[in-house]
Amino acid sequence: MDEARAARRRAGLVRALRPRAADSPLLDLASNDYLGLARHPEVTGGAARAAQEWGAGATGSRLVTGSTELHARLEAELAAFCGAEAALVLSSGYAANLAAVTALTDTTTLIVSDAGNHASLIDGCRLSRARTEVTPHADPQAVRAALTGHDGRALAVTDSVFSVDGDAAPLRALAEACRAHGAALLVDDAHGLGVLGDGGRGAVAAAGLAGDADVVTTVTLSKSLGAQGGAVLGPARVIEHLVNTARSFIFDTGLAPAAAGGALAALRLLRREPERAARAGDVARELHERLTAAGLTAVRPDAAVVSVRAPSPEQALRWAADCREAGLAVGCFRPPSVPDGISRLRLTARADLTSDQVDTAVHVITATAPVC
Amino acid sequence: MDEARAARRRAGLVRALRPRAADSPLLDLASNDYLGLARHPEVTGGAARAAQEWGAGATGSRLVTGSTELHARLEAELAAFCGAEAALVLSSGYAANLAAVTALTDTTTLIVSDAGNHASLIDGCRLSRARTEVTPHADPQAVRAALTGHDGRALAVTDSVFSVDGDAAPLRALAEACRAHGAALLVDDAHGLGVLGDGGRGAVAAAGLAGDADVVTTVTLSKSLGAQGGAVLGPARVIEHLVNTARSFIFDTGLAPAAAGGALAALRLLRREPERAARAGDVARELHERLTAAGLTAVRPDAAVVSVRAPSPEQALRWAADCREAGLAVGCFRPPSVPDGISRLRLTARADLTSDQVDTAVHVITATAPVC
Ligand SMILES: Cc1ncc(COP(=O)(O)O)c(C=O)c1O
Ligand SMILES: Cc1ncc(COP(=O)(O)O)c(C=O)c1O
Repeated sequence: MDEARAARRRAGLVRALRPRAADSPLLDLASNDYLGLARHPEVTGGAARAAQEWGAGATGSRLVTGSTELHARLEAELAAFCGAEAALVLSSGYAANLAAVTALTDTTTLIVSDAGNHASLIDGCRLSRARTEVTPHADPQAVRAALTGHDGRALAVTDSVFSVDGDAAPLRALAEACRAHGAALLVDDAHGLGVLGDGGRGAVAAAGLAGDADVVTTVTLSKSLGAQGGAVLGPARVIEHLVNTARSFIFDTGLAPAAAGGALAALRLLRREPERAARAGDVARELHERLTAAGLTAVRPDAAVVSVRAPSPEQALRWAADCREAGLAVGCFRPPSVPDGISRLRLTARADLTSDQVDTAVHVITATAPVC
Repeated sequence: MDEARAARRRAGLVRALRPRAADSPLLDLASNDYLGLARHPEVTGGAARAAQEWGAGATGSRLVTGSTELHARLEAELAAFCGAEAALVLSSGYAANLAAVTALTDTTTLIVSDAGNHASLIDGCRLSRARTEVTPHADPQAVRAALTGHDGRALAVTDSVFSVDGDAAPLRALAEACRAHGAALLVDDAHGLGVLGDGGRGAVAAAGLAGDADVVTTVTLSKSLGAQGGAVLGPARVIEHLVNTARSFIFDTGLAPAAAGGALAALRLLRREPERAARAGDVARELHERLTAAGLTAVRPDAAVVSVRAPSPEQALRWAADCREAGLAVGCFRPPSVPDGISRLRLTARADLTSDQVDTAVHVITATAPVC
């Protein structure tokens, strides 16, 4: 432990927590609160009312005392919104991914997993008893090749929008590759829900795959919906299977009522104001355009994440610190969180950013940029 | 999936969700709300205020935007209460166990894990790169034997109070066995916090091990503290190591403010009213005494869980259903949740049960008991 710590220090890769105040004056381009709903009064009100009405906790596993009518309502409305037959709410998006990957696979299954997938999907693969083959990033041909020759159950697993670079997976081509080989497709729509698809119905709906019998989707309630928790969406028989077999569902306390109530209020608000979804994407595209016009290297955003390249971990850290100094919070991704070793500033667009705020953000980021 | 479903149906082992109403009239002996705090107005008020003040969600990883001063306060007060140097709050007790086991081990570590450990500890062992040796339940001699001959890092892992049968681990003897071999000890105090130790400081404090350099504790905020979330407690260097390496911490959205605020309010209430802790244990012992006096077979409770044996899964299910019919909610543990295959009613004592309610519970359970 002490050696690892010394190595971190030498490499300038030490991480420390920096608790924020309730009235932090920083302009936030670092959170995943894409629709700006985490502090919306309807959403915080929904959370507060749920705590008052249902209690501060669920008090047990969803299979014992932890299921309330509030959970059931959230599941029904989430499934209907995303176009799935059924939904199951878990305590986090992380737990939802562990549940989906492990419950959909057994020792005879081949998992084909994108190299850019989120840690929770990777941990799901590690926890499963299946063999996992990692394919190059966003490469349906490679998925097809991996599935060829395997005759048994198979599951392809992918983020819909990759969390580090914000690029989208080729979902339709992946679904075709899976269908050609009788494989199922699991899509983690954590960064698509609320941003992509008609009114924010997500990337799976946008790809016309919602409700398909061989597609299972996971989402989080902690990003666009501004709360906490995760859900698995899919055919009712898949959900029944999860209820009976998924360890991170069965042996975990149900999601706290406040989180369920907050997410439900956010979902209803999004249904009423669907234009929020498109606005998040518009802001991201504007940020990207203006930053690249100023000479920075950034990935074209497919959703609300804009990833800007930094020359080194140290310079990324310095850059983020300078932004913060100037009143702007940005994400800073360095090894080992980025498997390719490339450090980035990770900016997130929010639907509620004003054009003045976008101006400020562009100004600060370009003014503090390291000379590359 | 369909085969597994048919097998479940044949074996009478199908699980289904039964959402409860906010005003459920059932007498609750099934939840883990040991101190009756989940719906205490101070606790729900703490949750509601936190949502209003901090937002419905933490909006990002604790390493990005997800750390608030509320999280820091909860960590400081939890550590001080339990006698640890430092604490780290995660989104669930499940995530805390995954974090602790994986971050404290590497490929060269030997993990020695009690056969009765909770699923989240087991999943932590599976996710780690270490070799795991499972030892017979609550057997320090077996732990000693497993550690003998291994020269490298080693970690013994145990629940403090086992979740199914409610029996306590021999923590002092385990700590001695570990020390004799230079191994560290990880204790999951999910069912000890709030019930055991001086004023509910937990089983690790009760065993005089809190604050020791070679002991790490995990707790949940979802049981005695009536909220959601988990925490790892230990030396500051261990906590720093987790912040830098634990995947279920780094790649997970921070705990929702409402859950942190609810748990903090519960902790403060417990400090002010320490007698709640002892009362939960007293109720459990009374339940055990009266049920065994009536001829039932039950494990002597070391904390607040009373496990009563049922002759078969079908009869356990019928028994629990009959209790529910008579207005009493009890837990029903059947295979595959119980690795030893023995079905049980799992009763939980609450500090706020009145003696009339205890009378009712004893009456209903004995009146509906299957003839064995
Ligand atoms: C792609 C992806 N999947 C899953 C998760 C986990 O979701 P949660 O933070 O709600 O547990 C995250 C982020 O944390 C994510 O970025
Ligand atoms: C012994 C034990 N550890 C850990 C957990 C997981 O905690 P949580 O439900 O808060 O995720 C539980 C119960 O769920 C438990 O019984």
